[in-house]
Amino acid sequence: MHKLFTLLLIFTGILSANAQSTDSISLMPWPQSVKLQSGRFVFTDKFTVGLNGPVSEKLTGSINRFYQQVGKRTGLYLPQEYITVADNNTNAQLVINFKKTILPAIGVDESYTLSVSSAKITISAATDLGAMHGLETLYQLVMPGKTGYYCPVIEIADSPRFKWRGLMIDVARHFIPLEVLKRNIDAMAIVKMNVLHLHLSDDEGFRVESMVYPKLQQKGSNGLYYTQQQIKELVNYAHNRGIIIVPEFDLPGHCSGILAAYPFLASYPADYKPAKRYNLDTVKNLNIMKVMRLINEVQTPTIDPSKESTYTFFDKFIKEMSGLFPDAYLHVGADENNGVAWKQDPAITAFMKAKGFKSTDELQAYFVKRMYAIGKKYNKRLIGWEEAFNPSLPEDVIIQKWKPAPIDSLSNKIIRHNNQLIISSGYYLDLYFPAYIHYLNDPVSAGISPADADKGILGAEAAMWSEMVNDENEEIRVWPRAAAIAERLWSAATVNNVDDMYRRLSKTNFELNDRGLLESRNYINMLSRWVNGANAGAIKTLADVYTPIKGYRRLMAGMFTPVAVHPTLSSPMVNIADAVRCDSEPHLHFRKLVAAYLSKHDTACLAQIKWQLLQWQNNKVKFDELATNSPYLQTITDLSNQLTDAAAIGLQALNGGGNKDDQLKQLQKAGMPLHEVQLAILPEIEALITGKLKDEPASYPLF
Amino acid sequence: MHKLFTLLLIFTGILSANAQSTDSISLMPWPQSVKLQSGRFVFTDKFTVGLNGPVSEKLTGSINRFYQQVGKRTGLYLPQEYITVADNNTNAQLVINFKKTILPAIGVDESYTLSVSSAKITISAATDLGAMHGLETLYQLVMPGKTGYYCPVIEIADSPRFKWRGLMIDVARHFIPLEVLKRNIDAMAIVKMNVLHLHLSDDEGFRVESMVYPKLQQKGSNGLYYTQQQIKELVNYAHNRGIIIVPEFDLPGHCSGILAAYPFLASYPADYKPAKRYNLDTVKNLNIMKVMRLINEVQTPTIDPSKESTYTFFDKFIKEMSGLFPDAYLHVGADENNGVAWKQDPAITAFMKAKGFKSTDELQAYFVKRMYAIGKKYNKRLIGWEEAFNPSLPEDVIIQKWKPAPIDSLSNKIIRHNNQLIISSGYYLDLYFPAYIHYLNDPVSAGISPADADKGILGAEAAMWSEMVNDENEEIRVWPRAAAIAERLWSAATVNNVDDMYRRLSKTNFELNDRGLLESRNYINMLSRWVNGANAGAIKTLADVYTPIKGYRRLMAGMFTPVAVHPTLSSPMVNIADAVRCDSEPHLHFRKLVAAYLSKHDTACLAQIKWQLLQWQNNKVKFDELATNSPYLQTITDLSNQLTDAAAIGLQALNGGGNKDDQLKQLQKAGMPLHEVQLAILPEIEALITGKLKDEPASYPLF
Repeated sequence: MHKLFTLLLIFTGILSANAQSTDSISLMPWPQSVKLQSGRFVFTDKFTVGLNGPVSEKLTGSINRFYQQVGKRTGLYLPQEYITVADNNTNAQLVINFKKTILPAIGVDESYTLSVSSAKITISAATDLGAMHGLETLYQLVMPGKTGYYCPVIEIADSPRFKWRGLMIDVARHFIPLEVLKRNIDAMAIVKMNVLHLHLSDDEGFRVESMVYPKLQQKGSNGLYYTQQQIKELVNYAHNRGIIIVPEFDLPGHCSGILAAYPFLASYPADYKPAKRYNLDTVKNLNIMKVMRLINEVQTPTIDPSKESTYTFFDKFIKEMSGLFPDAYLHVGADENNGVAWKQDPAITAFMKAKGFKSTDELQAYFVKRMYAIGKKYNKRLIGWEEAFNPSLPEDVIIQKWKPAPIDSLSNKIIRHNNQLIISSGYYLDLYFPAYIHYLNDPVSAGISPADADKGILGAEAAMWSEMVNDENEEIRVWPRAAAIAERLWSAATVNNVDDMYRRLSKTNFELNDRGLLESRNYINMLSRWVNGANAGAIKTLADVYTPIKGYRRLMAGMFTPVAVHPTLSSPMVNIADAVRCDSEPHLHFRKLVAAYLSKHDTACLAQIKWQLLQWQNNKVKFDELATNSPYLQTITDLSNQLTDAAAIGLQALNGGGNKDDQLKQLQKAGMPLHEVQLAILPEIEALITGKLKDEPASYPLF
Repeated sequence: MHKLFTLLLIFTGILSANAQSTDSISLMPWPQSVKLQSGRFVFTDKFTVGLNGPVSEKLTGSINRFYQQVGKRTGLYLPQEYITVADNNTNAQLVINFKKTILPAIGVDESYTLSVSSAKITISAATDLGAMHGLETLYQLVMPGKTGYYCPVIEIADSPRFKWRGLMIDVARHFIPLEVLKRNIDAMAIVKMNVLHLHLSDDEGFRVESMVYPKLQQKGSNGLYYTQQQIKELVNYAHNRGIIIVPEFDLPGHCSGILAAYPFLASYPADYKPAKRYNLDTVKNLNIMKVMRLINEVQTPTIDPSKESTYTFFDKFIKEMSGLFPDAYLHVGADENNGVAWKQDPAITAFMKAKGFKSTDELQAYFVKRMYAIGKKYNKRLIGWEEAFNPSLPEDVIIQKWKPAPIDSLSNKIIRHNNQLIISSGYYLDLYFPAYIHYLNDPVSAGISPADADKGILGAEAAMWSEMVNDENEEIRVWPRAAAIAERLWSAATVNNVDDMYRRLSKTNFELNDRGLLESRNYINMLSRWVNGANAGAIKTLADVYTPIKGYRRLMAGMFTPVAVHPTLSSPMVNIADAVRCDSEPHLHFRKLVAAYLSKHDTACLAQIKWQLLQWQNNKVKFDELATNSPYLQTITDLSNQLTDAAAIGLQALNGGGNKDDQLKQLQKAGMPLHEVQLAILPEIEALITGKLKDEPASYPLF
């Protein structure tokens, strides 16, 4: 178990024993080699850029964005209006050397070196992609000094640990507009991620315009989908930022959207419609065991793999989509197909018999192999979720591991079969876990040999399933947590100090928001709406210390959380659980204070703790005032009271009054999850009672 | 002179003498007829929409956005997932009746009625455009009650006063990205504006992709321009929101961008380049008289109107652009051509002689007429700035009046010549005037007969020139002030109470930001950047009470304001004058308090004033703390000190201490404009000294 917040300041010494302290630097992801020296490169209005290498539109774009961003941050009137490949001045203050322009792809050379002296900055890379990473690192080093901005004298050599550093966004359950995807791409580029995996179809909707099969978007969606022109624009936007796009069309299950458009593809006839609610709708008010049984027993919309017309359809479809998505990969899902729809269809069981398939697993393997052949025909390498694996599959199929367990016997089997793995286990952002849980989840978990890991683990992907995510809170849910995952995938496995990660994540979140992300804006906007534009200060004080309940408890509403509300495609998702972040910054700050106080009993620290508790205790007054004109706030007065009560208990404990057992009991009540959120500061208040601060949990239950 | 803030509460009585008080309603623009009654339509999870009329993609889109927005605001799980033309249920709670689907255009029927009873809402309109306006009005009526949201029982009949209600955005001086334009379009639709005029070319850049003349964007811009695909997307986006797009290609002057691409079009040979700074660059450190002389004497890049090849070029160019911009208008600028370039060119003077032209004005008229013929050929009605007018012009040329004077002899001459006017005089948003100045500027100013006004004034346009505006602060500069102009153009001339306008503008600004505008986000973001992401509260307290210096003093930097900085195309524009709003909300609030206190000497009011002054006085402590790590804040400590000093003087005056003359002298010092901004609360603090609150100025000087 990791020791969160207990190893303060040790980190610095480990990473840079022979150099300056790096705790002033907020790089994320942390580079492979950092040699910080004394001295500074000071930014002035003489700051120029020279570019030495072949023509690279994407690098030139990056440089211009970088240059303007330096101007914005420093306020300097920089001398170059617009930098082109003709600006190859080697006497420039920043010189960027690179050898080769390449398209973004997996396994290409992304390495770079960054050398900063007091007079000159040099970025050198084999490829324009490497140089772009170097620019991002450089920008993260720009920091305020007494009279202006500077970059410390430093030597950095860097390259990624994993080739595949992805983010999956489910745009099917709730449609995520193009501009939101673009902002995600910008953020990914900042933290050196290189794969955007779009989950484009599911039961709830099909989200790409097809010219060949136009009913896919007409009947398979609720009118919300990307036009082909938008996809082209998105691919171009991503490529210009060093990112490939992997389209996923989830088959043979999870396909009500497709079947609503072309029901002849289905295993059994029915009136298919895009699902209004997610698949688990039917399980409301049941218990977990019954849910699990139902998942295995219920007949769900499934493609008929026995008919040749199915493959004729998908051949034409994949041909069209391959032209639209030029990168080398095609994801066909293949998850969560229980085979019931197949078992109940006489024609399909006859087909299985004729082919000699003993189980629906074999039939699924047959389907995946047929899709593999279609992908191959259009130069795509196939990816499937882990259920897609079958020993009869070709070796170049990539398997995406998603089930919550660490590397297991199936994973080892896959690797020994020479297929490669992308790990999403432990990176599910829809579980509302705090960033450190994902950060400490290494893709190479116990149970795999180093050699196997080297050979078989291509990388990993953060996964943002969108049952409870829409255009407004997608950025709040993905960022900044995905940045912690990005570091896990880029940096050395030994870079794993949680305190230092949080220190840098806070700075990274400022950068992300400053450079276009609307994570912070949307959060504030959601709170402001509750008070119809009034000053939302008191709500922010409240919301800042609450986090959503964790695991699948929100998704399986009604089973575990009586107050939870079941989401539909058009659910407004405007309540506190939809808005609040998974890491509470005031909680992190308060935790540091409490830890420091408990170890040193310092009076300055005590005063800060008391001041903070008083703020929380008194927040009720302002909250109640705002609530008089807010229908929503009136429904969450109990949360405001919880905060007041918890703070009062903490103050009482600090003042030495009351009975400890009573206080702990009261605190438990104040800490009861309500409205699908829970108070983040409970362990610290408990510590003020008991005198002992517990470690943060190493894991959280899923249910 | 208007009596700002002195006629509190009179407004209500005038507008709705026989009905409920309308001061709880925040409609903007205010409708032509409002009959508020007692009773409420309460929104519940049974809220449904029925649509009765022909197929209208844009109305269906509006309805779905409206419906989702109602869900977001109320938090209700509404029963319809997605509304289509098939949802024609007349028993729905909201029924929308319309007769005809039309393309957005000038002079079409935009009227609607909105009838709300406690059980049902009906919107009726002749056209889908009218129905869309009705939906916007309805959404603005959604308000919080004790337990949920409601809409008051009300009867509204509404139609616009002017046909042309425009916003001009200069995208040439600084490029304004597509997504910013889209957000402006969203905001325009909310306040019922119907024309987006894009100033697409100027000396600093040419901003549209041309396939026929690709050098226009390649050599005529700094790499920033709209692709044809983006223009198509923008036109479609605007049309779907009831807005037409008018492209302007400024000719024959203001055209270095074009001449850099195709120098053969120029009146004299030179090495043309897109201007890095705006035209007035050469006048730095001169006085205003010399500037004016130079403007009339300096030879500036100008199209050669004497060569047939010029018209061959523009015929092909306008043909291409006419395909791209389908709406009925073409703006060719024709402003600020002093004719010097023509007078100095022997071939041109020979041409004038041969044609019998006695002045360059006649040559300009010839040019405009040739452009008129080209426009006509491609079904475009020509628009030019007021210098384009010449009595020999056809009557269907529209003239855009921009010079700061009210309706003058030229305007009357234009109208008597049967040409129509668009008024931009008094609507220049780049002058940093507060909203009320534009609000009280009626397009029908003194000096024109009602009959002439009816016949000759088509409408008006807010104008956002972008020498000091970029992607980040464009929304801060345009909004919410453009909403006050939108009301001036839509509502009756008698709707002119400034206090009530500001009350509603504040609510409207919340709506605009809530529904996608980034005015508030970008403002906060710019302040946060100064402190590298630290809590920017103290800076906001400071920045909130400063406004930019007014008129052309920022633009003519160096002449009038020693501390001003001259902007270039790539100027960072991140300083306080770039960020702060033109109306200070805390100032407006403080002004009300001071006015109330001076008239009633109420102690509760006095306490509030003192509390506010103390907050301002003490802000210095937090500001100085933040400044230690902020190079920028260190440069504006003088502003922080000004606020502290001004607040201290106010407190001293309230406490009856000190000498009044000394206080006024000290206040003058504290009020000195610095860093291109000025303290907004000076008149109110002065009033605390003198006991008399002066009216806000009826106008501000331009220089």
